[in-house]
Amino acid sequence: MGKNLIVAQSGGPSVAINATLAGVIAAAQATADIGRIYGGIHGVEGIQAGKIVELTDFHEMEKLKATPAMALGSCRCKLPPVEDRDAPIYQNLKKVFRDYDIGYFLYIGGNDSMDTVCKLAHYFAGEPDAPIFLGLPKTIDNDLPLTDHTPGYGSAAKYLAITMREIIQDTAIYAVPAVTIVEVMGRNAGWLTLAAGMPRFAGGSKPDIIAIPEVPFDEEEFLRQVRETLEHSPNVVAAVSEGIRDRNGEYVGSSAKSGAVDTFGHAYLSGVGKYLEGLVKREIGCKVRSIELNLMQRCSSHLASLADIEESFALGKAGVAAALRGETGRMVALDRLSDSPYSVKLKTVAIEDVANLEQLVPEKWWDLQDPKAIEGIRDYILPLIQGEVPQFRNEYGFNEYISFME
Amino acid sequence: MGKNLIVAQSGGPSVAINATLAGVIAAAQATADIGRIYGGIHGVEGIQAGKIVELTDFHEMEKLKATPAMALGSCRCKLPPVEDRDAPIYQNLKKVFRDYDIGYFLYIGGNDSMDTVCKLAHYFAGEPDAPIFLGLPKTIDNDLPLTDHTPGYGSAAKYLAITMREIIQDTAIYAVPAVTIVEVMGRNAGWLTLAAGMPRFAGGSKPDIIAIPEVPFDEEEFLRQVRETLEHSPNVVAAVSEGIRDRNGEYVGSSAKSGAVDTFGHAYLSGVGKYLEGLVKREIGCKVRSIELNLMQRCSSHLASLADIEESFALGKAGVAAALRGETGRMVALDRLSDSPYSVKLKTVAIEDVANLEQLVPEKWWDLQDPKAIEGIRDYILPLIQGEVPQFRNEYGFNEYISFME
Repeated sequence: MGKNLIVAQSGGPSVAINATLAGVIAAAQATADIGRIYGGIHGVEGIQAGKIVELTDFHEMEKLKATPAMALGSCRCKLPPVEDRDAPIYQNLKKVFRDYDIGYFLYIGGNDSMDTVCKLAHYFAGEPDAPIFLGLPKTIDNDLPLTDHTPGYGSAAKYLAITMREIIQDTAIYAVPAVTIVEVMGRNAGWLTLAAGMPRFAGGSKPDIIAIPEVPFDEEEFLRQVRETLEHSPNVVAAVSEGIRDRNGEYVGSSAKSGAVDTFGHAYLSGVGKYLEGLVKREIGCKVRSIELNLMQRCSSHLASLADIEESFALGKAGVAAALRGETGRMVALDRLSDSPYSVKLKTVAIEDVANLEQLVPEKWWDLQDPKAIEGIRDYILPLIQGEVPQFRNEYGFNEYISFME
Repeated sequence: MGKNLIVAQSGGPSVAINATLAGVIAAAQATADIGRIYGGIHGVEGIQAGKIVELTDFHEMEKLKATPAMALGSCRCKLPPVEDRDAPIYQNLKKVFRDYDIGYFLYIGGNDSMDTVCKLAHYFAGEPDAPIFLGLPKTIDNDLPLTDHTPGYGSAAKYLAITMREIIQDTAIYAVPAVTIVEVMGRNAGWLTLAAGMPRFAGGSKPDIIAIPEVPFDEEEFLRQVRETLEHSPNVVAAVSEGIRDRNGEYVGSSAKSGAVDTFGHAYLSGVGKYLEGLVKREIGCKVRSIELNLMQRCSSHLASLADIEESFALGKAGVAAALRGETGRMVALDRLSDSPYSVKLKTVAIEDVANLEQLVPEKWWDLQDPKAIEGIRDYILPLIQGEVPQFRNEYGFNEYISFME
């Protein structure tokens, strides 16, 4: 019997991260080279405190794949520098790895979580009996480098494309001029906002305006576009990233800028959508509404993409295979071989090249009037948002989900 | 060949209102007693201006039933008092009815639209060759009297129940205390917020707090409930109606109350969710987030309830049948015969008893700790949110919708 494996989740949730967990468990169960399978509750924070469940005999894989958020819970925990060898969290982890005879540590997460894997690999390098440390990517933001895309992005993109299509339909019913501003997640990368643009890229005429953080945002130009659109259509729809910035790099609608304060004098936090709503109301004076898609972008499992879920599952299995090959300090990544028919290859990349770095929308896709850019974006996103995931519903018609946190 | 029929839509959209339109068209096509079938674009406002399309040969009923919002467009138009007999809009309508040989006028809408039907019936009463005027209810708010519920409510309720279930799942992953406040549509009636409570009523433990406009809202009591919940669960989830009011009838979080102004001195409009977010941040100091479900509550056709869509379709057909029986100045309504198995009967009611009146949540369902209230609400809502509606998707996987507005 081989060494034991521990798997955990960290960072923000998505609807695909449990599919990767299911892939890890399934692959680990299928090999005699791995003994027991453990799950760490609330990431490294929980593991170092001994919050561990056993998953060796868990078999409800399809239900786990259809469960949004994180069945093992999450944490947001930045490990101390590896030079701080006596830091309690490293000492605690060392003890847990020894107590549980851990040979493989697989961590599913985004940029910050890859920093954790990177530090652990460096910290334990040279230690006798050091476990294998592997990162499995997930983030709806799609902003990890060296991978074609990240698990979770496809499902969030599908939610955005379909919801935008419905919002456009909803706003088209009145003859009176109206502006609808939809705020999409993404502090630095515009990937999700491009997905919200899919109703236009796939043959429609809206959303009229699409603004991503990669391109400096000019309020005058925005107002000009709104006015111009109102000349031929009563309904203007805009999709904007929460992280759009002006030419000086300052967030559009940051509280410093809106200057809004409540009766207590506290700064009034409002998103860019609300800010632009106020701008249009003041400068153009027509009916205007802002919509923040909020958590629904990352938790709407009823709209999960089957392509995303199955790929996330495969990626979990590939993580176990890489671990068994002895790879450590690496992340599993996706290479796209072809858009249509869609085909990807799984590979691993050095975690140092990923941790704390961001992959932004490439400059060739910044001009959203350019037919070549539109074609490129559409061909990139379309295969990621296809297919429906079977739902597990109870007697009331509500989804049943898996949780290991109880 | 009989007289012609005109049908139009008015007020706010829903995902079921086109199913009622489909029912009207289908039933009108099936009888020799009706000649041509017309659709009025943008409600009475468009009809009086001659914006009319012919629907006699339209046959894509299933696609129309799966189209959210309003295929004929909408208006928000309050007719002048009927005593104002020379008002241009009445004169224009009279001419249009004569020009198009209209014998039947069917209007699909909510409270305000029923006011329009009521006024038209009164205005034309006694005129030679006056058309039949009938109202067909729809409103996601479920606040029309004399009908068990309104078409559109079931689909919005399903969106709310499923989305709340997913939000609860999303917020459960961290061990640090956090409060999530979900703001639901409903200025006066709490029907939609009760639907958001379904994950708890159907056997779960959350949302922890549910606040409807019918029950005066006490901020101190709210904070007490949040603190109490935090003692045994790190994640508090609250569902609150946008229209909750304090003991003096003042909207909670009205701008007058928050006093927030921007740099220009304009009042900063924020919903009750944002207001309560600020309150929790200030008074409790933990992580807090508010979510406004916004238009998605009324436009998410991908989550439409089949029960709602088929019932809306049947209601459209019943409207034509009532018109052919010569009923005028009435609205088609639903009588519930049984919760399980679910069974309803279609009837008509006098429009005067409906127009401008509201049906609020009954007092017996105000105490959401009372098991009898919970059972009553659950049995009321459950049959309305069942079943999936077939989707029409194009080559890109996007829904194809019907519009008569082009």
